[in-house]
Amino acid sequence: MNQGSAEPRARSRGQGRPRSEPARQAILAAAAELLLARGLSAVSMDAVADRAGVSKATIYRWWPSKETLALDALHEQWATTGQDPPATGTLRGDLLALLRPWLDRADDRPYGRIVGALITEARTDPVFGAMYRERFVEPRRAQARTAFRRALARGQIPAGTDVEAAIDLLYGALCHRLLHGHAPLTQEFAQTVVEIVVAGIGGI
Amino acid sequence: MNQGSAEPRARSRGQGRPRSEPARQAILAAAAELLLARGLSAVSMDAVADRAGVSKATIYRWWPSKETLALDALHEQWATTGQDPPATGTLRGDLLALLRPWLDRADDRPYGRIVGALITEARTDPVFGAMYRERFVEPRRAQARTAFRRALARGQIPAGTDVEAAIDLLYGALCHRLLHGHAPLTQEFAQTVVEIVVAGIGGI
Repeated sequence: MNQGSAEPRARSRGQGRPRSEPARQAILAAAAELLLARGLSAVSMDAVADRAGVSKATIYRWWPSKETLALDALHEQWATTGQDPPATGTLRGDLLALLRPWLDRADDRPYGRIVGALITEARTDPVFGAMYRERFVEPRRAQARTAFRRALARGQIPAGTDVEAAIDLLYGALCHRLLHGHAPLTQEFAQTVVEIVVAGIGGI
Repeated sequence: MNQGSAEPRARSRGQGRPRSEPARQAILAAAAELLLARGLSAVSMDAVADRAGVSKATIYRWWPSKETLALDALHEQWATTGQDPPATGTLRGDLLALLRPWLDRADDRPYGRIVGALITEARTDPVFGAMYRERFVEPRRAQARTAFRRALARGQIPAGTDVEAAIDLLYGALCHRLLHGHAPLTQEFAQTVVEIVVAGIGGI
């Protein structure tokens, strides 16, 4: 294991030191690579430390388990999370702007396996489950809510719209193909999904 | 391990014997119980054999791995699979008749964890992935296709309807809550999902 130059600069500052951003990024990138290549169950903290060129203690200082590290590594990969969707003037436009980068990313690499493993862990350990929803599920739902809120304000969807169900339909349909792999996750599919949901809630 | 009276009667008949249905049912029931209680990774073939009162060799005669056993155990639990949905005269009615038993079952026990583990395995091992889709994903999609085909024949949905996308929306939304656990899987939710999808494809 290389504990040399890539070891976080902050190390010499003792307890309470600020996070070393380069080391943090190296760990997240190493974790994402290994997770995509091997899957959650086959990735060890040792392997991540080795690849990132940091000590295992450095990783454990920031992440108590490989599952929480995996959450942050995926969060970092799907980088749009947390930003408002572009305001295009229509609900269809806003939703597609939100889903397109998600799709590009999802279609790129074998994320289905990792997300499946994180779901399994989230449904096994309630503490991790809460963290999973807070860091992974909720930020994306919040972005979609913004798009629906704008459409409501513009009078483009009815006042009583069940926004939560609409979001489940949107992300549910996309995640369904990501996880089960029975059909391709294309931009055309996302467009069809958005069309059906917007028309289905009586939107214009 | 109890290898006594519950050992399949067929044992004495030598190779090529027909399946012993009571033993098969005992194995499937034991596997389902253990899977729900412990999750896929913590369940061993030894534990299933012990609980079912059969030898491990008996299980391996029928199932090459615990993942394939888990598939059949879940298939057996979600018992409606493979039957045509009741013909209610409307697409909404047919779809709800299809989804209601699924929901009753899904809401009952911690299936999210097992389905998550099976997805992970399906996305790791392509051979198992094909089996997963064939035994677990496709039978339910085929049932839904029947409902849409009837609606097409009655002129209740437009001829060009993207039935596959509609099915992804229906099961995707339900699976989304099953897997992520961010909101309850209620009959009201299923009704809202069906309403949005049927209206969204221009159905009556």
